Amino acid sequence: MRKNFGVKTWLYPMPVFIVAAYDENGVPNAMNAAWGGVYSDDMVGICLADNHKTTQNIRATKAFTVSMATADKLAACDFLGIVSGKAVPDKVARAGLHTTQSQFVNAPIIDELPMTLECELVSYDDDSNFMVGRIVNVSIDDTVLDADGKVDLSLLRPITYDSCNHHYHVIGQKVGNAFSDGKALK
Amino acid sequence: MRKNFGVKTWLYPMPVFIVAAYDENGVPNAMNAAWGGVYSDDMVGICLADNHKTTQNIRATKAFTVSMATADKLAACDFLGIVSGKAVPDKVARAGLHTTQSQFVNAPIIDELPMTLECELVSYDDDSNFMVGRIVNVSIDDTVLDADGKVDLSLLRPITYDSCNHHYHVIGQKVGNAFSDGKALK
Repeated sequence: MRKNFGVKTWLYPMPVFIVAAYDENGVPNAMNAAWGGVYSDDMVGICLADNHKTTQNIRATKAFTVSMATADKLAACDFLGIVSGKAVPDKVARAGLHTTQSQFVNAPIIDELPMTLECELVSYDDDSNFMVGRIVNVSIDDTVLDADGKVDLSLLRPITYDSCNHHYHVIGQKVGNAFSDGKALK
Repeated sequence: MRKNFGVKTWLYPMPVFIVAAYDENGVPNAMNAAWGGVYSDDMVGICLADNHKTTQNIRATKAFTVSMATADKLAACDFLGIVSGKAVPDKVARAGLHTTQSQFVNAPIIDELPMTLECELVSYDDDSNFMVGRIVNVSIDDTVLDADGKVDLSLLRPITYDSCNHHYHVIGQKVGNAFSDGKALK
């Protein structure tokens, strides 16, 4: 029987995006974000509260990166969501993370996170706090690519946020092929 | 070493949302959607092309549901993404799925998918095809709840779309606690 839970922002899977930008002194800052996804053909959309240091940095620099949090760097990624860059300006370094500037946008790539979307700010809506960015490049470390040059999820080990239980889960085993498993029903 | 892939809408995890609405005759239709997530405090946002029958139905009825696709119903959920409701008006039934009207909005809940967001249409943007809906209720079947009444992912078995490889993966094991694993770094 179905149980009604009322108004909840629970859905599966929910991402753990590590959103990074430079501050006014060129210091990299980053936060984690669970609300968002692909927005349209070449854009991502993420809800970021306007009081975050990262949000302010993005609005100033007009650029950001979105890296996939991984099981291997779980504690560091969680730390980025616990500590504010306002209180701890070197939080990225304190998390044990290092950065390299994107070749495509004025934003930092976190070296330890193997997959990153490099984005230009398109819009930020003050009412909803929803930010839209254009994906300029996706960079992926070759250590998480398979022999065909595609992402191997068993190597990348991206995590997902369980918003009902406040847990992180790793993406698990392959269970089917998109656009073909349903063909048997046609 | 990082490899640049250019403009790609690849990110992890990406959802497999089953979006359902009634047509003008009260017949339930549904499609699957991978682009979207939580939009803001009580809203979801999903990119839905305007030529989909489901999109047209939602714009007419101003209501929809979003169910989490599951490993147990993978073939049916994939089928909803392969076949158009314009060509196959009874596609939901042909997928072997049954529906019950939401108690909260004028939209169908798919009985075989245990977790559903019941939503009112807030806006649809003709340029981006991005749809925003207000979550009015989340209903979850008690067969996928644990002893504390919370979602048990090992029972729900929601799937995620690997947009790089066109595979579906089930959400895997718990790897940590949000807001606490990073405390060791503080």
